[in-house]
Amino acid sequence: MAIIEQDTTNPGFKWIGTRPIRPDGYEKVTGKARFGADMMLPGQLEGAVLRSPHAHARIVSIDTSEAETMPGVKAIVTGADFPDLAEAGAGAADLDLAVNVIARDKVLYEGHVVAAVAADTRKQAQAAIKAIKVNYEVLPHVLTVDEAMASDAPILHPGTRTKNVEPAPEADSNVISRVVQQLGDLDAGFAAADVVVERTFTTKPVHQGYIEPHAAVADAMPNGRVHVWCSSQGHFAMRTMTATVLGCDPTRIKVTPAEIGGGFGGKLSIYLEPLAGRLSQKSGRPVRIVMNRDEVFKGTGPASGTKITVKIGATNDGKLTACQSWLGYEAGAFAGSPVGAATMTMIAPYQFENLLLEGYDVVVNKPKVAAYRAPGAPMAAFAVESVIDEIAQKIGMDPIELRLKNASVEGSQAAYGPKFPKIGYVETLEAIKNHPNYQIPLGPNQGRGVASGFWFNAGMNSSATVHLNEDGNVTVIVGSPDIGGSRASMALMAAETFGIDVARVQPLVGDTETVGFNDVTGGSRTTLATGQAVTEACEKVKVDLMARAAKTWNCDVADVEWVDGQVQKLDGSEPPLSMAKLARGWGRTGGPVSATASLNARGVGSAFSTQVCDVEVDPETGIVRVLRYLTAQDAGRAIHPSYVEGQFQGGVVQGIGWALNEEYVHTAEGTMDNPSFLDYRIPVASDLPMIDTIIVEVPNPGHPWGVRGVGEVGIVPPLAAVANAVSNATGCRLTDLPMSPMRVLDALNQKSNGGNGH
Amino acid sequence: MAIIEQDTTNPGFKWIGTRPIRPDGYEKVTGKARFGADMMLPGQLEGAVLRSPHAHARIVSIDTSEAETMPGVKAIVTGADFPDLAEAGAGAADLDLAVNVIARDKVLYEGHVVAAVAADTRKQAQAAIKAIKVNYEVLPHVLTVDEAMASDAPILHPGTRTKNVEPAPEADSNVISRVVQQLGDLDAGFAAADVVVERTFTTKPVHQGYIEPHAAVADAMPNGRVHVWCSSQGHFAMRTMTATVLGCDPTRIKVTPAEIGGGFGGKLSIYLEPLAGRLSQKSGRPVRIVMNRDEVFKGTGPASGTKITVKIGATNDGKLTACQSWLGYEAGAFAGSPVGAATMTMIAPYQFENLLLEGYDVVVNKPKVAAYRAPGAPMAAFAVESVIDEIAQKIGMDPIELRLKNASVEGSQAAYGPKFPKIGYVETLEAIKNHPNYQIPLGPNQGRGVASGFWFNAGMNSSATVHLNEDGNVTVIVGSPDIGGSRASMALMAAETFGIDVARVQPLVGDTETVGFNDVTGGSRTTLATGQAVTEACEKVKVDLMARAAKTWNCDVADVEWVDGQVQKLDGSEPPLSMAKLARGWGRTGGPVSATASLNARGVGSAFSTQVCDVEVDPETGIVRVLRYLTAQDAGRAIHPSYVEGQFQGGVVQGIGWALNEEYVHTAEGTMDNPSFLDYRIPVASDLPMIDTIIVEVPNPGHPWGVRGVGEVGIVPPLAAVANAVSNATGCRLTDLPMSPMRVLDALNQKSNGGNGH
Repeated sequence: MAIIEQDTTNPGFKWIGTRPIRPDGYEKVTGKARFGADMMLPGQLEGAVLRSPHAHARIVSIDTSEAETMPGVKAIVTGADFPDLAEAGAGAADLDLAVNVIARDKVLYEGHVVAAVAADTRKQAQAAIKAIKVNYEVLPHVLTVDEAMASDAPILHPGTRTKNVEPAPEADSNVISRVVQQLGDLDAGFAAADVVVERTFTTKPVHQGYIEPHAAVADAMPNGRVHVWCSSQGHFAMRTMTATVLGCDPTRIKVTPAEIGGGFGGKLSIYLEPLAGRLSQKSGRPVRIVMNRDEVFKGTGPASGTKITVKIGATNDGKLTACQSWLGYEAGAFAGSPVGAATMTMIAPYQFENLLLEGYDVVVNKPKVAAYRAPGAPMAAFAVESVIDEIAQKIGMDPIELRLKNASVEGSQAAYGPKFPKIGYVETLEAIKNHPNYQIPLGPNQGRGVASGFWFNAGMNSSATVHLNEDGNVTVIVGSPDIGGSRASMALMAAETFGIDVARVQPLVGDTETVGFNDVTGGSRTTLATGQAVTEACEKVKVDLMARAAKTWNCDVADVEWVDGQVQKLDGSEPPLSMAKLARGWGRTGGPVSATASLNARGVGSAFSTQVCDVEVDPETGIVRVLRYLTAQDAGRAIHPSYVEGQFQGGVVQGIGWALNEEYVHTAEGTMDNPSFLDYRIPVASDLPMIDTIIVEVPNPGHPWGVRGVGEVGIVPPLAAVANAVSNATGCRLTDLPMSPMRVLDALNQKSNGGNGH
Repeated sequence: MAIIEQDTTNPGFKWIGTRPIRPDGYEKVTGKARFGADMMLPGQLEGAVLRSPHAHARIVSIDTSEAETMPGVKAIVTGADFPDLAEAGAGAADLDLAVNVIARDKVLYEGHVVAAVAADTRKQAQAAIKAIKVNYEVLPHVLTVDEAMASDAPILHPGTRTKNVEPAPEADSNVISRVVQQLGDLDAGFAAADVVVERTFTTKPVHQGYIEPHAAVADAMPNGRVHVWCSSQGHFAMRTMTATVLGCDPTRIKVTPAEIGGGFGGKLSIYLEPLAGRLSQKSGRPVRIVMNRDEVFKGTGPASGTKITVKIGATNDGKLTACQSWLGYEAGAFAGSPVGAATMTMIAPYQFENLLLEGYDVVVNKPKVAAYRAPGAPMAAFAVESVIDEIAQKIGMDPIELRLKNASVEGSQAAYGPKFPKIGYVETLEAIKNHPNYQIPLGPNQGRGVASGFWFNAGMNSSATVHLNEDGNVTVIVGSPDIGGSRASMALMAAETFGIDVARVQPLVGDTETVGFNDVTGGSRTTLATGQAVTEACEKVKVDLMARAAKTWNCDVADVEWVDGQVQKLDGSEPPLSMAKLARGWGRTGGPVSATASLNARGVGSAFSTQVCDVEVDPETGIVRVLRYLTAQDAGRAIHPSYVEGQFQGGVVQGIGWALNEEYVHTAEGTMDNPSFLDYRIPVASDLPMIDTIIVEVPNPGHPWGVRGVGEVGIVPPLAAVANAVSNATGCRLTDLPMSPMRVLDALNQKSNGGNGH
């Protein structure tokens, strides 16, 4: 797996770019690591959750009287046990948050929480759940963008009028809001085109499929404090949201992060924490609630199902002239699909002068969607990159050449406003083009597909604390949960800053009370933003230690320098002082040595990925086999290349699953028909080839180490790359995901019957 | 309970000096607080410890073969499982530390650890312990200073020659070292005296008697890291010592502090942590070990038993002219009695121009002594203050007047070297003299005793971190275990610094990885030193927030000021920015707000206490009943007066127990005869009157709030105060503690037979 170093001035790093064993690896492979469900407290109760069996229904009554008398039952909560945030003047987002945690007057999707029980054992809690009598008045439901936008659709949230449309609508709607990106003159753009391709695409909700189900333990103190243990992508966010739903100050909540068995955006939301918290408050005992897979599918947020139309014009020599798109994104039961991010990212790889992108955030009777790795972008890229591929076919141009001809570069205008700073999109295209994989001849029923993707990456708030220990080693504490190896990358950046062996750095994730505020691990921000905080805190320690050395030598601090983990006197008149020596003497130079740094990250660096996929389609069964897969992505700087490659590969694998197999299947009653990993098919190792990676490094000039962030953009191209490969292999343009064997077979049959497979 | 404010300029504090409910109170009274034994981990094993039944024996062999095959047994350790620190070049203190944790070639006291077992259940572990066969060669033992110093005494540590004696000794000795304090001309001093009193005193080992026995959980990771949970007075010290015994870097050990159910100096040492750690390493499972009371008595450190001779001369008008003392302190089985502190403190309240104090650190076949509240001082003060009392009687002077006449004051020379800075000893004497208790007439068989005490207090290293939370409240994290209410005092100092309600401050104790290095909670240092760190960290946050406000207002930081928890613009042109508003806007002003401060405490302030005790002695039974007790102590500044009073009262109560009832009783075989709270009698509520307190406040000019530290000096006077009261009531001078009914009766019988009761 090649690393293409684009930086002409090799910085000569000693630790950054190396591949030490991850600090959390031993604990994970030996089963010692403690995940969300691994917490045990004295007197701990076990919880169970009652969920709606209906997609949409009014709750007429809830009778918990029988359940309350059952053996072992210590507390039961319903919506009535939680504060009315509307009375408290909360905003819409907080109201939705609270009602998504537990329903009040009606249920909006199958799996919506109605009640929760804490009992001595899980079996007792589950038995009590079954004894709660809920009287529902079932309402008609809507499941898709089309159903939800129909003129006679039942309305999920009466009183809702679509935002950002002119004139202001007079009727209630399931469309929460409209977003628009617009540039140039659309008609002129299409008029200048020799070729125009327009297609409509659909994608189904897919789940992040993290291995670890949600789990939370809460221990409420009689003084109003609540201690929560859970696995999440941001324990500070869990604190804030739990406080909101429970109606208290965040300072009263402590959240200790567990190890996290996958999140991918799906563990940015709260589900169980306030339930466990309120049950603990009512029972006076710690309460643990653990979801099973059925609950994860039905009760937590998948990615949006979508309907997207894309129309792109191009000249015969490959100049893209105009793009128009209409995007309808399912939000699930409450506002907040990532359609805005979709419109902002979908054509960012290209310099379009004329465009109109309209997106709609549409509520449906399904679980509220959650972020899923570059949220909103893969489906829109699926549409755009499929159409670009078709244009390349139509004008007879290599798809990489077409992209190179229109590629966004430093200084070019992004559809969503800003001019790009230094970016590495072209470099990813060149890397793929020049890779031997791109030249391998294909056999019968085989096809090759190329696609690109963009993700802005995020900055946001991070804090870090660094302690020098008595032995001269350092402990680095961050508040960003480690999802993809960030402890390893923090240790490497600290080692590089100090000039010491990375084994002397102990990186840790601290709880909400032991490290400064941190925004979530998401937006590919952690290595960038938290890395900045770690670097800054290490620099503070170095400055402090140089002052201690100067004090020890009774000289000016200007007369000392930092070299490879020790302080030297410039004139060489004293032997150097190691960090261990300075630690042993700290009592005489001012006390222990620690530093904290908090910042709002500067210099966020955008990320591009280009990928090529080879597939073989079995014309008898419609099964698509991925033969080989190559991804080239601009990491800016790969701090720990193994984890960067792992992020690249993970994004691709999830994208392949999204493209080929994964989907929520619903019954006519609006209930999920495949809520298990037996029926909801994520890729397993035997489904996949090795995912080959090229780490492109166009250093981000805004970051001390050149980091951009690598977690998300890798999932943006695969849906289209696989679809383009399938199209190339079959001659059928598949526009509906997943391209499951039956859909591929249908397309092949339509084609042999004279259609184009669409 | 009066507070005597000595500071003429009332500082007008808003929070310091108030008495809010302690932040840890709810958790403790409702049983939610987690102490050392309350940790449970998945797969946790239970440990048991095999201890020597002999006071002194050679270990010929240990056979664990049968125990290893017993049900549930997962690991067994003996001394052979621990690294040989001598080979690694460790110093004497580390060698003693390691061998005290687990014996190697011989056992040095009853209770000395020989082996430990981890099994699935505690019963299995205890059964396995019984099946370990140890072949001992019993050796002769010594139990007291006199026995250990006898010329034919068996030697605990062959090869030991007494340090600091001239000429250098040629024979092995149980006397580890000699310490000396010397001033002026002793002969001239005694020659100038009209009265000379010389007496010899003895005290027995007494235990700190903390309610919570020692407990430790260790979880060793395959990568060499070990996580330890335990209740201690200093988790950083536990980390260092555990690392020493296990032979690894402290950075590899994480210690999480549990709540502590009493320490008083006895939880500064390690006992179980390395055993649990090594058992966890061998078994691959977490291991918990919990002592029972028998083990606490036999296996952990009591205070030294002592033999002390004091000779003091005085003129008839009450001028003390000379003091000579010989002190023999039992160290237990390894070097390190607090005899040095005894010689440094015993006459510190007085201006002696001529003195010679010689102390001897003597090893005996008993558990290694541990610190106990002002370690070493109470026994020496018992001797000195008894003789001072007798001199007052002989020259017919009120004992307070005698003390006032000779009292140390600002600028006077302490026996141990320095000149006193501003101190409040005289103020404590005046406070007692002027209190109504001192005038209450006494009845038959009743007596009144006065005594004073001194303790230097400590400074040492402390760190603190302060986080501003999104709601504008603050979290204050320290690394000093909270033994006597320090979380409350930290919150008050933070609230005062910020000018906000103390309820908005969440004070916490962080583990070894989440806060900077802290020395132990001991030496009465925490409120002083950690309070300095907290105050400094809060000031840093204020400076940061003022800069944020200036940035928000686009003005110079010189144009803003901090007033009562918010930043104001000096010209009043903007509404003030509260901490909550500044928190909400931190993303725009540079990120989250946190600060850490680490320091070696400055301005340590010495403490004095004077106490008066009234007793009634039952001439039939010898039982001494304490009628009333008044203590006046210079706190410097009482941050939270309730906990200051609690410290005063706790010291007195423990001192009364030491004076009247507590003692280790040994058999001729060198085994403890009373290792339970049934036979080792600590005072209970019904034994005691209310302990009246006077908080004297002579602010320590070296501390931002005037704090001195209050935890220890309160236990220094009671042994003598009670003895002086008994002497006054009975006419018998009792010189051997405890003054149990039988000893009092003996004294009364001797007196009626014509002796003086001595």
